[in-house]
Amino acid sequence: MANPYNENNINGIINLGTAENKLNNKEILEKINEAHGKCQDKDLSYGTFSGSEKTRSNIAKVLNRYLKPKEEIKASQVFVGNGCGPMVDMIGTVLSNEGDAFIVPEPYYGGFNGDLATRAGVEVVPVGHTDDDVLGVTEEMLEEVYAKNKDKIKGIIIANPNNPYGRTYTAEQLLVFIRFVNKHKLHLISDEIYALSQFRDTLDGKKSDFISVTSLDLPDPSRVHILWGLSKDFCMNGFRIGAIISRSLPVISALKAYSMFCCIPGSYDTMIENLLDSDEWIDNFVSLNQKRLNDNYEKITDSLKKHNVKYVDANSAYFMWIDLREQIKNVFPNCKSPAEAEMQFWERLLNNGVYIAPSAAFYATEPGYFRICFATQWNILSLALERIYKSF
Amino acid sequence: MANPYNENNINGIINLGTAENKLNNKEILEKINEAHGKCQDKDLSYGTFSGSEKTRSNIAKVLNRYLKPKEEIKASQVFVGNGCGPMVDMIGTVLSNEGDAFIVPEPYYGGFNGDLATRAGVEVVPVGHTDDDVLGVTEEMLEEVYAKNKDKIKGIIIANPNNPYGRTYTAEQLLVFIRFVNKHKLHLISDEIYALSQFRDTLDGKKSDFISVTSLDLPDPSRVHILWGLSKDFCMNGFRIGAIISRSLPVISALKAYSMFCCIPGSYDTMIENLLDSDEWIDNFVSLNQKRLNDNYEKITDSLKKHNVKYVDANSAYFMWIDLREQIKNVFPNCKSPAEAEMQFWERLLNNGVYIAPSAAFYATEPGYFRICFATQWNILSLALERIYKSF
Repeated sequence: MANPYNENNINGIINLGTAENKLNNKEILEKINEAHGKCQDKDLSYGTFSGSEKTRSNIAKVLNRYLKPKEEIKASQVFVGNGCGPMVDMIGTVLSNEGDAFIVPEPYYGGFNGDLATRAGVEVVPVGHTDDDVLGVTEEMLEEVYAKNKDKIKGIIIANPNNPYGRTYTAEQLLVFIRFVNKHKLHLISDEIYALSQFRDTLDGKKSDFISVTSLDLPDPSRVHILWGLSKDFCMNGFRIGAIISRSLPVISALKAYSMFCCIPGSYDTMIENLLDSDEWIDNFVSLNQKRLNDNYEKITDSLKKHNVKYVDANSAYFMWIDLREQIKNVFPNCKSPAEAEMQFWERLLNNGVYIAPSAAFYATEPGYFRICFATQWNILSLALERIYKSF
Repeated sequence: MANPYNENNINGIINLGTAENKLNNKEILEKINEAHGKCQDKDLSYGTFSGSEKTRSNIAKVLNRYLKPKEEIKASQVFVGNGCGPMVDMIGTVLSNEGDAFIVPEPYYGGFNGDLATRAGVEVVPVGHTDDDVLGVTEEMLEEVYAKNKDKIKGIIIANPNNPYGRTYTAEQLLVFIRFVNKHKLHLISDEIYALSQFRDTLDGKKSDFISVTSLDLPDPSRVHILWGLSKDFCMNGFRIGAIISRSLPVISALKAYSMFCCIPGSYDTMIENLLDSDEWIDNFVSLNQKRLNDNYEKITDSLKKHNVKYVDANSAYFMWIDLREQIKNVFPNCKSPAEAEMQFWERLLNNGVYIAPSAAFYATEPGYFRICFATQWNILSLALERIYKSF
């Protein structure tokens, strides 16, 4: 991004568009540097490519503790690679042929599109949501989309916790997806990269906890594949460490055939082994992060309410979906279309020194919404909010 | 590898098959750890994906000093990614369509095959060599191969210094390749990953120095792309740091479209910036490495001569091509074919505790040769040689 905000450039653009959590840099850097400066002979040699035994068993351990899978995740079911974007590419590659497609509930994380299409040539086919629930997708809606694209649909891809909403799926909704893929012999890819970043246990006043698909009764576990990594829950986007967890031996074997192209380096195995070794350190870090996310969420929602900005309630990850349709209409009453008005308002925000992601970036059908990331120090976040309000 | 040799398992298999240089671990680890334990805020964030400006300009600086290109290599012509294997995949991907092919002089580095085929679906078509020169390929030989595969040939791929021979190409030979690709509007990929590991300046008694294709008169520089990385010359295989250097803006742009899938992590940018910053440190490291390689080469060739093992003279990289046709025939006089005898002899070597790579791994047309890596401490290397001699 040109002209980014920093302490020496306070008029620069504050980035609340990229999903980065900057609340725990000090703690995570301390832990990383503990192991990072201790490269050994073995790190110079070719490693195992798909993650060392210790790395994979440590990841399995974390997920078994936090995802509470029905059936324990084994190290052999974990494939480690260079970030979750490449892991979307890889799971798409091994499950599909060029021209195949996955159904995705819209609005959706825009990266799914590029990650599946760029190398694997796999498409996404959006499905809408019910009027009363932004994450609600009925069996009928899925069937309708499927009927139109039967030849190419290979499965469903979701982000849970959801991106852009920052909301967790209910067990009932997940079971709709699970039954559907099972009925049609398809696959469910559940991107659970924000799994450890649930900061509240309610949504719209109702008890709502993160539920991993792995914790449910799966008629065929080999049709459900989850993605996780250190980018979000451990605030390490730049380190490019992701994982695919699959109960399907053929899928894991197929992934390994590509591991040379998407492996993490050997020294990262050493680092991850240290990072994920102590349950106590992990629990402390995760709960500290969740507390900080909750603090920021309370502050930002207080502020939004005061400024009459509608938003969709969130409980996880570190972004939320705000509704600026009214404000945009007031500022640009004569725009050709709501989509164009959104783009013009987005430029206005950039000119006022704040970058948040417009609904178009999530292929939303209804314009006028923005995703705002709130995992930034409050003094910067509140300055960004002022710049947004100034744009109304 | 199962049952590897180490100081606690002296009867384990000594690996002289994998191209790893273990002569400078102490020096390189010191330098790596100097920068590696100092991760900063910026390393946690998404980086530039194709290498930071500083990383790319430092790589350009090294190559300008050691490759002596006719036209200075600019940082903007350097694309950095996760190892040279993935970079072969990437350059194959952007220059070709599935089913296309590159001519490769045989025997050749077997990785070219998998790196081009696995994701990109690109083939290699071998061309032989002249009777009097293991690296000699005439225009006529290239034309003959091309005529048979015209529709799919996209160019030529070579390793210079050559793998498996450890020999440098002459300017005259490189010009044969250059003229050929230019005549037919093809591309030359020159993998120069061992460029800084020339340890002697003669071959077969004749003055022979490494010459980069970039140092020659190129009728069309946009048709010549080189590969380099830190794996070999800096003994850092496990770190997965490679680079493509191309004068073609469309090629660099196309590569960038894929950079998300093959980037190096942000903390490695920090590390490389430090590693390649001081010309003095680099020069000292490179000449120390070359001296150590030369010492080992003198020792191993002395030993081979004493044991009547024929070999092809080498001057670069850290392996050589030994001729065991006679010895294999003596041990397995009744084998169905030379190829089968080679495999049986290879198993015999493994059983005797040493792994060297058979000619089949390099798709050689004539069996009975092995590539032996000699960049290992002499006490281990000499033990491995004893195990080889014991197998005769």
